[in-house]
Amino acid sequence: MTPDERLERFSELTVRVGANIQPGQEVVLIYQVEHVPIARAVARAALAAGARRVSPLIGDLHLRRAAIELGPQDELGITPGYVLDWVRTFADTRPAIVTLTGDPEPDLFAGLDPVLIGKAEPRDLRALVISLITESLVNWTIVSAPNPGWAEMVFGEPDVERLWQAVATTMRLDDNDPVAAWREHAATLDARAAALNERAFDAVRFRGPGTDLVVGLMDVSRWLSASFETQSGIAHMPNLPTEEVFTTPDWRRTEGVVRSTYPLVVPGIGVRVEGLAFRFSEGRIVDVEAEGDGADIIRTQLASDERAPFLGEIALVDGSSRVRQTGIVFYNTLFDENATCHIAYGSGLPMAVDGADGKSADELLEQGVNVSSAHTDFMIGGPEVEVDGLAKDGSTTPIIRDDHWVLD
Amino acid sequence: MTPDERLERFSELTVRVGANIQPGQEVVLIYQVEHVPIARAVARAALAAGARRVSPLIGDLHLRRAAIELGPQDELGITPGYVLDWVRTFADTRPAIVTLTGDPEPDLFAGLDPVLIGKAEPRDLRALVISLITESLVNWTIVSAPNPGWAEMVFGEPDVERLWQAVATTMRLDDNDPVAAWREHAATLDARAAALNERAFDAVRFRGPGTDLVVGLMDVSRWLSASFETQSGIAHMPNLPTEEVFTTPDWRRTEGVVRSTYPLVVPGIGVRVEGLAFRFSEGRIVDVEAEGDGADIIRTQLASDERAPFLGEIALVDGSSRVRQTGIVFYNTLFDENATCHIAYGSGLPMAVDGADGKSADELLEQGVNVSSAHTDFMIGGPEVEVDGLAKDGSTTPIIRDDHWVLD
Repeated sequence: MTPDERLERFSELTVRVGANIQPGQEVVLIYQVEHVPIARAVARAALAAGARRVSPLIGDLHLRRAAIELGPQDELGITPGYVLDWVRTFADTRPAIVTLTGDPEPDLFAGLDPVLIGKAEPRDLRALVISLITESLVNWTIVSAPNPGWAEMVFGEPDVERLWQAVATTMRLDDNDPVAAWREHAATLDARAAALNERAFDAVRFRGPGTDLVVGLMDVSRWLSASFETQSGIAHMPNLPTEEVFTTPDWRRTEGVVRSTYPLVVPGIGVRVEGLAFRFSEGRIVDVEAEGDGADIIRTQLASDERAPFLGEIALVDGSSRVRQTGIVFYNTLFDENATCHIAYGSGLPMAVDGADGKSADELLEQGVNVSSAHTDFMIGGPEVEVDGLAKDGSTTPIIRDDHWVLD
Repeated sequence: MTPDERLERFSELTVRVGANIQPGQEVVLIYQVEHVPIARAVARAALAAGARRVSPLIGDLHLRRAAIELGPQDELGITPGYVLDWVRTFADTRPAIVTLTGDPEPDLFAGLDPVLIGKAEPRDLRALVISLITESLVNWTIVSAPNPGWAEMVFGEPDVERLWQAVATTMRLDDNDPVAAWREHAATLDARAAALNERAFDAVRFRGPGTDLVVGLMDVSRWLSASFETQSGIAHMPNLPTEEVFTTPDWRRTEGVVRSTYPLVVPGIGVRVEGLAFRFSEGRIVDVEAEGDGADIIRTQLASDERAPFLGEIALVDGSSRVRQTGIVFYNTLFDENATCHIAYGSGLPMAVDGADGKSADELLEQGVNVSSAHTDFMIGGPEVEVDGLAKDGSTTPIIRDDHWVLD
């Protein structure tokens, strides 16, 4: 497989399996300037798949750094109104949304005030996009685009070819028929979700070094996996690669302590937070620990709205994960979250809740589904972490032992 | 001068002399992905000069090529409504507009249907920006950003350092005080414009190989040079470098033949047109000649609206031009137009017409000022081309002889 073939397979998979772009559909392609070569290939694949138009939304995090350093503070985090107005039209126009990630430069925000870094995140834009997604209005996918900065973060040197090989492995691009390989893999994950839904656990417990956490579920929490469907019936895979089964927990019912087993790379700003640990009480994160400035950055995120310090997602992954098997820490949540079990503070996922369609924010909260402009995943699983399902009667069922999925 | 110092001087000159960004002003920064390193420096300089916010509008011509090749034809040239709505607000918000050019890739559109290439130009967006400019609503500047593609077009190899040195010469970055150098140079050009205005010629005649052209002026045509002023009094220099004095001719009064003395690089799409020649009758371009596909591309442009085939600008430049003195054909209109005399078909420049303020399009046309969504410059001067001023009484006054400005 030549690099050109690899890029073509990556792009095909992104538009046909990931976003599942429909003939005549508009495609909104969101990326950073460092992703340009891959964005071009994805745009071509989208048009070849019948997209009517590719509307790019190209950003440059260096401009965000400049604004933090040199601009007035009250401008930070503001997305221009014309962009927000455009995104608001998506509820009617229903474009496909393809986002490329892969943090383009390690330590770009090093040395800046963590409070300002947090303020500079585009909160309003993110909230709009999250609401489109949680209401299943758009078919969307996020894929990660290998680039020199990301390769440097992973390997300590900008070895993009090595990163590409790892990404190709996790995305099964080396398979004879990557599209068929993804369908088969999705069926395996669906079977895990079905087993969890059959048991209808009341809570999930994680136990390991520094971790003893019970995450309470709702009666209506539904376990999902790779494949989503829009309200209008377009199947799509929001993340490629994906190895998880996940659901929305009850935001009021998490208790205990948890230690992150991977670094957390803060979405959008690329800051790496190591040694993260939380204590939960009645669902709320009440203590934050991390190395260096990390705890301040996380606290700023948690302060972004009233509901940010509560969980919105719980996801289970075992050691058979292709991401795990590369043995690589990707410093990229979309990859690392697929290496092991994780939870996310911030917004819940209504599509993972039975009967949530059409409910207001207040009704969702009342039911136990968190509503927030934040949604940040962090990894808590690994070989030393046991995962159990807890039934209402207090009985315990092993789900993951020694890094193996054991629930039938 | 190190490359870093050079980039800093370039950026300083762009924001302080070119756009003359005001404290608290928003800056709209328009560029292509290949201009990223320079855009970052300009954004920093803008914020350091007191800009409230830098709003980037980043494009990628490769996506335009993909749309021409693979997308539906009826989508070509359409700028999304949300961008047009945003640009319409500029009449009220009055941002500074800084545009980086420097065609990023030679022959990017090679092999495509010239009619589709022409259709893919963002006509609506251009018309909106031209109207902001011609009404003197915004302080703006266009500067060219050296990049590998442009260097390859100029030198046959991507020697960006050599291109940077040429650009630095033309922009006087090697002067002890580039800002002072630009003030002095602007005074020289102003003196030429004053001499032309004093004579109040009825027409300008160009004679040389393949050229015998008389461009009729209006009584109210006013010669201008480097410095513009907005309605609200912000002085700015729309082009850096600049070597020209120019005015708006009477769109009904050009007669004769003219042969372009430089290649024309079609704005926005980077296609190079060589061997261009026009015949005018009663102001209208009635014959087009060029090598290869060039004539078709130009004809498509001329067909973009009813008034495109009429002149909107005439500009005089002699051999003392710094651009000319580099001896380089930059394949970039902003540079090459400052190497020698040029004319532009398409929109006239109301600021170069006495009493044009506040007139409607119909009133401007009635007066002799062209109104069009097009404005494309092409070069017609050089050592072999004589330029004369013609008075109403038929008398002739030399303006340029042997490439020297001779009018006192």
